[in-house]
Amino acid sequence: MSEKLTQGQIQEILDSSPFISFCGMTCEEIWPEEDKVLVRMPMRPEMERAPGTGQWHGGPIASLIDVAGDFALAMVLGGGVPTINFRTDYLRPATGDSLAATAWVRRAGRTVGVVDIDVHDEEGRLVAVGRGCYSSKIG
Amino acid sequence: MSEKLTQGQIQEILDSSPFISFCGMTCEEIWPEEDKVLVRMPMRPEMERAPGTGQWHGGPIASLIDVAGDFALAMVLGGGVPTINFRTDYLRPATGDSLAATAWVRRAGRTVGVVDIDVHDEEGRLVAVGRGCYSSKIG
Amino acid sequence: MSEKLTQGQIQEILDSSPFISFCGMTCEEIWPEEDKVLVRMPMRPEMERAPGTGQWHGGPIASLIDVAGDFALAMVLGGGVPTINFRTDYLRPATGDSLAATAWVRRAGRTVGVVDIDVHDEEGRLVAVGRGCYSSKIG
Amino acid sequence: MSEKLTQGQIQEILDSSPFISFCGMTCEEIWPEEDKVLVRMPMRPEMERAPGTGQWHGGPIASLIDVAGDFALAMVLGGGVPTINFRTDYLRPATGDSLAATAWVRRAGRTVGVVDIDVHDEEGRLVAVGRGCYSSKIG
Repeated sequence: MSEKLTQGQIQEILDSSPFISFCGMTCEEIWPEEDKVLVRMPMRPEMERAPGTGQWHGGPIASLIDVAGDFALAMVLGGGVPTINFRTDYLRPATGDSLAATAWVRRAGRTVGVVDIDVHDEEGRLVAVGRGCYSSKIG
Repeated sequence: MSEKLTQGQIQEILDSSPFISFCGMTCEEIWPEEDKVLVRMPMRPEMERAPGTGQWHGGPIASLIDVAGDFALAMVLGGGVPTINFRTDYLRPATGDSLAATAWVRRAGRTVGVVDIDVHDEEGRLVAVGRGCYSSKIG
Repeated sequence: MSEKLTQGQIQEILDSSPFISFCGMTCEEIWPEEDKVLVRMPMRPEMERAPGTGQWHGGPIASLIDVAGDFALAMVLGGGVPTINFRTDYLRPATGDSLAATAWVRRAGRTVGVVDIDVHDEEGRLVAVGRGCYSSKIG
Repeated sequence: MSEKLTQGQIQEILDSSPFISFCGMTCEEIWPEEDKVLVRMPMRPEMERAPGTGQWHGGPIASLIDVAGDFALAMVLGGGVPTINFRTDYLRPATGDSLAATAWVRRAGRTVGVVDIDVHDEEGRLVAVGRGCYSSKIG
């Protein structure tokens, strides 16, 4: 059994990815006993849905869901894992300077892991939910 | 019954979105009789998964799936529609200078529409598939 | 705004469906303030995956997820609603004399509602999770 | 590389499951070169949504999707495989004496396989679509 990743190790892997780094995602908090992580993403002009609305496009939200779910399982398994599939449900239009994705592992099996992801805006409104299935093989 | 969008009208809506515009997505071809569109996205350094690999991160692929599916239904209904939910399955690591998403409407109902999306790389390999559910209400 | 369904009203609708009635599903408990219901389904010989294993086939588990999710939203909206789509993730082989599905509404919007469903066996193990999108139009 | 299952072998495995056998599912046709199978399920009174409507409940439709998808991959791999997760989208109310699920493998990878499933009624109407992810490990 490998050791769980620390918050610093997670951030290091996040930063090493050009895409995640461009998105500015940070691992803001981890709860190792609950297999849970919090990943935050700041708004960028490039992520706006329609000009001047301040509304997030769904694409970056789906990306945040994918990454947060991935790193909840990565923390538990001790290294990054490939996404197999995931579902995104948009619940409300999302606005504001940043979004916070809380991801927690529902099951870390031998072949795959299943993770739930809730995305809140800065007012605490639930704007989207995700559910992802990731490979349990690190690499 | 509203008229179907033309390729030019679709491109105009794509271009009006800061996010889609940043991604450089273009509506390369449409098949109005088959309720089908082809949206292409060029590789950008910001979309790489790990540095120097040339591999696409899954986030932009999910974004492409969402947008292509959306505009297949938008073409049929005559205007842009909100995404309700979608599923992304990654089938192979994706590399290359661009990805092509073919999206076709499976059902355009009164309340929601369901669209399938296949994503191919430039070698013609199927790298991901998506299935999305969109609201039938334009706006 | 219509009134929430009572446990008895939910059971009445469940019993009126030949399929749900055949499955023997009962609304065992409701938490109206949390938009949450608990639906239980007893094992039947017809629901076994392989003979003599006592293991549930995935089909009835998916059916339980669909129905429990449906009635969490039905309780909130005051009447039964059509399923638009749902996802089922199987986490462990499921055995035992009954399964319990806890379903809670994540969002009851004007067009659709989104519901999460956890399925536990009698030992309290989480054997499957579901996420469903339902129409908000009663009928 | 193991050999593909024949139609007779598929039917034998279907018949060995109490649940699938109760549902009366038959493997009506296979296209081994296209990794595609057709599974049919006859209406039973126990599968009706509401009494006297002749409409299928969604639960049996989801079960048919799960099983048909499973056996498309099982044919390719040479043996039955566990379902990891699947999505069901209902497109139209389904009626009639039987439903036909066509399932074809989109990708048979080393860890998982992805299968698409279309469900038609006897009039040829597309009533539901499914997409499933199955383990590639037989057993």
